[in-house]
Amino acid sequence: MRNDDKKRQSGCPVAFGLDTFGDRWSFVIIREIMLRGKKTYNEFLEMEEGIATNILADRLKHLQVEGIIAKAPNPDNRRSYIYSLTGKGLDLAPIVLEIVFWSGKYDDRPFAVRTVFNKIKKDRSGFEAQIRDSHI
Amino acid sequence: MRNDDKKRQSGCPVAFGLDTFGDRWSFVIIREIMLRGKKTYNEFLEMEEGIATNILADRLKHLQVEGIIAKAPNPDNRRSYIYSLTGKGLDLAPIVLEIVFWSGKYDDRPFAVRTVFNKIKKDRSGFEAQIRDSHI
Repeated sequence: MRNDDKKRQSGCPVAFGLDTFGDRWSFVIIREIMLRGKKTYNEFLEMEEGIATNILADRLKHLQVEGIIAKAPNPDNRRSYIYSLTGKGLDLAPIVLEIVFWSGKYDDRPFAVRTVFNKIKKDRSGFEAQIRDSHI
Repeated sequence: MRNDDKKRQSGCPVAFGLDTFGDRWSFVIIREIMLRGKKTYNEFLEMEEGIATNILADRLKHLQVEGIIAKAPNPDNRRSYIYSLTGKGLDLAPIVLEIVFWSGKYDDRPFAVRTVFNKIKKDRSGFEAQIRDSHI
């Protein structure tokens, strides 16, 4: 859920965070950039969850307005853009890692992907540093 | 957004987490219990964001099915129930604290509430321990 009116009503930091980045699609886009190195509109469109083009365009715009991602011309293709995390976006890394860690503990579905969980378990701060380095 | 079909489609831990606890209202209910010591249906109804009764009932049921909260008869009032966080729910504390920390850094609205942020900044692991202790 994303409701910009609600955001103005409460001083609660949990509500602020959820209103800023917390709708499912926004967060999945952040995951695509942060953990999977995706950068372009077409790459986001191919994500396994199957995002609709209008939702993708809306959430990219929202994340840009919130200062979480930046959009720049793609040097390899004049007709497309590169999206990247800003410092504010990269600062979401601890939240993403805590979610992955929690899910790694409680998701017992046989097809659960545990690659990132195992990296966090092995060396959490090293993995977070690696994320930050790869996006600067 | 909460979509139980989607949950079965992806092995991604970020998506698993968001589908389990990540819709705005579920998370705000978790906040009410974890950080504000709220326990009853009527207390949740009074939250500042103004939750509708049908949404509240739906999310409480959802969080119970997911094993994040437990429901028990209220010893003080036979006609009501006490909701509490399970171990699985308490394990969401690091995620909640990271969200509060991020918001504390980036929410510059004059009415932003910084009480919990300041506690985390001062003694993060102590505050997390305090949350866990107060719910066991």
